[in-house]
Amino acid sequence: MKKTLFKNTKVGVSKFLVDVLIEGGLISAIGPALSVSNEVEVIDSVGKVMLPLFVDGHAHIDKTLWGMPWHENDVPAELSEIIKNERNFRANNEFDSFQQSSEILKTYLMKGTGHVRTHIDVDTEIGVKHVEGVLETKRKYKDYMGIETVCFPQSGLLVRKGTIDVMSQAMAIGCDFVGGIDPSSFDRNPVKHLDTIFNLADKSGAGIDLHLHEPGDLGAFSVELLIERTKALSMQGKVTLSHGFCLGEIAPSYQAKLAKALGELDISVATTAPANRNVPPFGLLREHGVTISAGNDGIRDTWSPYGNGDMLQRAMFLGLKYRWRKDTELESALYSITEGGANMMQLNAYGIEVGSEASFVVIEAQNFADAMMLQPLSRDVYISGKRVASNGKLEVDL
Amino acid sequence: MKKTLFKNTKVGVSKFLVDVLIEGGLISAIGPALSVSNEVEVIDSVGKVMLPLFVDGHAHIDKTLWGMPWHENDVPAELSEIIKNERNFRANNEFDSFQQSSEILKTYLMKGTGHVRTHIDVDTEIGVKHVEGVLETKRKYKDYMGIETVCFPQSGLLVRKGTIDVMSQAMAIGCDFVGGIDPSSFDRNPVKHLDTIFNLADKSGAGIDLHLHEPGDLGAFSVELLIERTKALSMQGKVTLSHGFCLGEIAPSYQAKLAKALGELDISVATTAPANRNVPPFGLLREHGVTISAGNDGIRDTWSPYGNGDMLQRAMFLGLKYRWRKDTELESALYSITEGGANMMQLNAYGIEVGSEASFVVIEAQNFADAMMLQPLSRDVYISGKRVASNGKLEVDL
Repeated sequence: MKKTLFKNTKVGVSKFLVDVLIEGGLISAIGPALSVSNEVEVIDSVGKVMLPLFVDGHAHIDKTLWGMPWHENDVPAELSEIIKNERNFRANNEFDSFQQSSEILKTYLMKGTGHVRTHIDVDTEIGVKHVEGVLETKRKYKDYMGIETVCFPQSGLLVRKGTIDVMSQAMAIGCDFVGGIDPSSFDRNPVKHLDTIFNLADKSGAGIDLHLHEPGDLGAFSVELLIERTKALSMQGKVTLSHGFCLGEIAPSYQAKLAKALGELDISVATTAPANRNVPPFGLLREHGVTISAGNDGIRDTWSPYGNGDMLQRAMFLGLKYRWRKDTELESALYSITEGGANMMQLNAYGIEVGSEASFVVIEAQNFADAMMLQPLSRDVYISGKRVASNGKLEVDL
Repeated sequence: MKKTLFKNTKVGVSKFLVDVLIEGGLISAIGPALSVSNEVEVIDSVGKVMLPLFVDGHAHIDKTLWGMPWHENDVPAELSEIIKNERNFRANNEFDSFQQSSEILKTYLMKGTGHVRTHIDVDTEIGVKHVEGVLETKRKYKDYMGIETVCFPQSGLLVRKGTIDVMSQAMAIGCDFVGGIDPSSFDRNPVKHLDTIFNLADKSGAGIDLHLHEPGDLGAFSVELLIERTKALSMQGKVTLSHGFCLGEIAPSYQAKLAKALGELDISVATTAPANRNVPPFGLLREHGVTISAGNDGIRDTWSPYGNGDMLQRAMFLGLKYRWRKDTELESALYSITEGGANMMQLNAYGIEVGSEASFVVIEAQNFADAMMLQPLSRDVYISGKRVASNGKLEVDL
């Protein structure tokens, strides 16, 4: 069996050089100056940092325009207008969710992301077309990318009659999670919205991932409803709150109360750390044991032209938003793009540990912090011991 | 005289392809399908965007650790602690401001920045050592980088006895601007602080550039004092307010009042668009004719590990913070890293116009927005018609 030794690499946030031995697609040993036989291929890894494959905990790969000609954006900054504009775009343009999700997947992989949870639009116009497209991508590239799918009522669940049926259909054909969106401000009936998505989840034994952009106390009320239903239905570990800007806007004692409940019920939080919104209180949530995952959100779509598919850039955005500057604080950024997402997605054999899959990114950088700041493309990506990308180029035929 | 034609490039935010002719270091013609003689060197510029040299309107090139071994940061998030830590670092480490400012200057140039206003620490421990270092860099690289220098009382002006003398000395040896910092919250006497820096400026016929991190109404009071003195001393066009977070935190009617006064007195605003602070109201300020410049602020120093010296990344930070998503909104990002700074620095022959210096960046991108989102290193940098950098490498021996 082929053995490979990564000699003198830094692992994660560690300052020390170690050797990492790979056998049969797994990590078989980690330690300083491992002694190995002559047959082992040795890769000099001085000046490199080895990180677990990145995890994008909140994405919309079904709707990216990545690789398409530039899309001129002229939409007012209002949720309903943006959503209407997107539906119009789809009605008037050829758009293939399989093609587009495959396209961004290649960029993800090239930059070191190997797992993604993606929210897929379903509505009464496109039906489950986007779900089918992403499920095709998921099947086709299963050896390279772990994809969790959320059926997402982007155009509203209750306010758009017929959407619940489409959601059921999406779950029936293979979605992993039931999504939701702003139960009060957008869908106009918080209790019915939450009851509906929990009912859909209950029927299919699936989890929940709720988009919540609602501000302050209005948003916090939705969080309370989410917490109550998670508890009542014993859905510990199966529910995620996405965005949750409101958690950064309510009174400290209320923050603490909700953080405690989220921790107790193992409700994870996914954040994109937007510069222009408040963000969930990271430290407080972690103190209460809440799992936090970072996500790229939309990348270059009709919503927004931002994003490049690099979770190291997202780590930088988290660091800037949370004002992490100490080296020890920057560890939270690494956590958010790796372990946090892996915990949320309940991945097995994840991480750079003996016995884990040999799936990692080896980056030219002084340490993790340096990599996070400069996001160099000089990185090698390995899946189960096989190098699949190097220096910004894929090395497998996808 | 050598002539060069950039054939079929996009210029600035324009969607149309034009030709740009360069003669004797100047732009001599711009237009669609220019006809030229055979002796002209033609550079195919399809798929490229030509932008004016970038301007960094707020920097600290005297204190960057760029190119040095990783600096482990363990400083609490408190201004006085950070400043004390920085002085300790200097007391205990070899640090050469000439060397360091030269180092980051090369990265600036390689990425397309050709003008910078930099705030240089002066205090009773280092005296004017950093000023001397940066002035040496300014002299040595004058053909490649325009540097405006601000003597900056980082450790306090009044609270640190003896600093005023060092400031006078800094102005005497060649600083262009008098700096200041948080007159109330940090220096403890707003009126005396402002009076002192205006007095220093008046004596040397220099301008003012005030660091203002003070929040809300406290900061706004400092802005009022700045406005009053600018008017009283007829210093229109010679004063800059840096950061000015407070302008994003006060009541709308108060914002409007201050914006009007800033516009009337031609007091410019420099912003770094931090993700974790409020920012000046961009649109309102521009409506009142206020010049706004974007700056990188510190890059990889004892304050913060962030930054890579690329003004296109800064443009992205502005866009994310101000939630600019429409193509027309993104024009403000280009303005902020080019024309805004050029106006603030009162640069002549700037911009891509007939008669201007042929100093620009030619970037591989679909358009400016694409360049701002992806910040490709595939860019050629020209100074007065001479290519000085290409694809991330300097082509002149600095």
